[in-house]
Amino acid sequence: MPNDQQLNDWFQERKSRLSERNAGHLFERICAGDRTALSAAITLVESKRPEDRSEANKLLQLCLGLGKKAWRIGITGVPGVGKSTFIEAFGNHILTDKSKLAILAIDPSSNVSGGSILGDKTRMETLSKLDNVFIRPTASDSTLGGVARHTREAIILCEAAGYEVIFVETVGVGQSETIVHSMVDFFLLLMLAGAGDELQGMKRGIMEMADGMIITKADGENVQKAQWARREYANALHLFPPKENDWITQVHTASSMTKEGFEDIWSNLQSFFQAMEHSGWINENRMRQEVEVLEEMLRALLQSDFFANEDWLAKYHEMESKVKSGEILAYQAAEELFQGFKSNT
Amino acid sequence: MPNDQQLNDWFQERKSRLSERNAGHLFERICAGDRTALSAAITLVESKRPEDRSEANKLLQLCLGLGKKAWRIGITGVPGVGKSTFIEAFGNHILTDKSKLAILAIDPSSNVSGGSILGDKTRMETLSKLDNVFIRPTASDSTLGGVARHTREAIILCEAAGYEVIFVETVGVGQSETIVHSMVDFFLLLMLAGAGDELQGMKRGIMEMADGMIITKADGENVQKAQWARREYANALHLFPPKENDWITQVHTASSMTKEGFEDIWSNLQSFFQAMEHSGWINENRMRQEVEVLEEMLRALLQSDFFANEDWLAKYHEMESKVKSGEILAYQAAEELFQGFKSNT
Repeated sequence: MPNDQQLNDWFQERKSRLSERNAGHLFERICAGDRTALSAAITLVESKRPEDRSEANKLLQLCLGLGKKAWRIGITGVPGVGKSTFIEAFGNHILTDKSKLAILAIDPSSNVSGGSILGDKTRMETLSKLDNVFIRPTASDSTLGGVARHTREAIILCEAAGYEVIFVETVGVGQSETIVHSMVDFFLLLMLAGAGDELQGMKRGIMEMADGMIITKADGENVQKAQWARREYANALHLFPPKENDWITQVHTASSMTKEGFEDIWSNLQSFFQAMEHSGWINENRMRQEVEVLEEMLRALLQSDFFANEDWLAKYHEMESKVKSGEILAYQAAEELFQGFKSNT
Repeated sequence: MPNDQQLNDWFQERKSRLSERNAGHLFERICAGDRTALSAAITLVESKRPEDRSEANKLLQLCLGLGKKAWRIGITGVPGVGKSTFIEAFGNHILTDKSKLAILAIDPSSNVSGGSILGDKTRMETLSKLDNVFIRPTASDSTLGGVARHTREAIILCEAAGYEVIFVETVGVGQSETIVHSMVDFFLLLMLAGAGDELQGMKRGIMEMADGMIITKADGENVQKAQWARREYANALHLFPPKENDWITQVHTASSMTKEGFEDIWSNLQSFFQAMEHSGWINENRMRQEVEVLEEMLRALLQSDFFANEDWLAKYHEMESKVKSGEILAYQAAEELFQGFKSNT
């Protein structure tokens, strides 16, 4: 038989575990600026248990109701460009103006389960020690919409918690740039000087998505090279068709060691948000992003009966081979598959 | 009572009308180089009647079986860039090397019903008079995959008819560039000198799709300006990540009046096809294009029950408003719509 103390401990622990999964409790604590609650809330939205999902939805609804907004800034660049060092140094820099900064990292290739990666804490040593900074990687997830959904929901939670600036960082290489671009207001592309092999890992089309470009490591012997690169990229950007919001992408050089360029980058960001909040573009763009998610997600769900079924997937691959070998045209192949599927369900 | 002659006429006409819709007949005549049969075949694949579709599929199957290949070249550029004049002059130029040229024009915004537009004949006056040139606009179509499907199928028919080069031209402004890019081997972008307002109508991202770029109207007072533009674009392209097939996009200047640049452009095209046929990229790329169509088309069909239903479309728009006003997050909205749909069908 457990004694009273043990029973009490058990009860307290159970209560606190439950409150970690209760929308109302979490909401109150998040609004009060409790970082542990924010972490627990992100774990809740990442959970696959149906009862957690329903609490998560309630919590998100409450947070949306607040209508709080942060500056959502995406940061990307090939490995080796110095993303972490830049975020560490630049994050410290902007905390003279802004009081709370959240950093969400997206890495679709990683397999960490919810919670913090030790790596992130050591990557950003000074930021991770600050009370007004929240750092969190998004757990990888194979469910529909997985990583993107978790990060979008984490953004809403961070906004409710009063974070004024949210960096969404791509950690892995690959498809994550587009995902990040689809959930931020400003997309910052870090580049290395020298436009040769460094570009190999970069996705085509990414330069046109950038709202700002930074040539990193502009210090010591690199300064001259970085300035050349800056001019070259600025000329190239000039040739792109104008953006729908008429924003003109600036190219800066920066050093995370000497802080060179930080003032300019920060004032460029401030101009952007001032102009775009004023013109209403920020809101329009967020609406458009949400509507795109709605459509994509609904489409994915509507296809899931077919693509989540092993038999049909096998039939699909069979037809794919025929299409590849030129036996049948794709349209006809698609119609045959669809008619088979329809008459069997 | 009709007399024998009338009966005979009626019978002949009926027979010829039927043979215009018979896969076997059309196939034979297409292979024999009969342009009227090719026209009739394209009209057949554009037809919405189910019995025509089944003959169309048979015909396409027969044509695919021949395994004949043409150089598929997409040509695009903003209105005013001189596309028709270029195609007229350059088409004549390449007919010294190649014996048969087909020109398919895509204009999703037009409403012409199958058959030739008078405009096309006058746009390309000398080409339209040549026996070895086939010109055909794609009829606009609101069905799933519409215009793209018709043009892809027309390409197969033209290849079976022995055309060695097929230009797929975008006529309208807008989304057609991506459609064209997805069905050709080489994507040619025509540009005007002066990188200002002319770019307004150009889709972002299109420069990175180009396998070749041409600054048009490089004659008279324009020569200098065109050469400057050429250099600027060449520098800009240099900054893009390399293409998967390692092809380096060249920028040429050209004049449809003086034929300046035509030799270089043609030899650039020849180098491309030589290298890409040799490396196997042409085939790989066509396979990939077909598989993409298969997937897209199947996905579209799987969603059609929902999106083709007025009630569900209305519910979708209702939910869209809620998402826009920030009442509900997109993921949750999509799930609610989907669950409602599933439990009702």
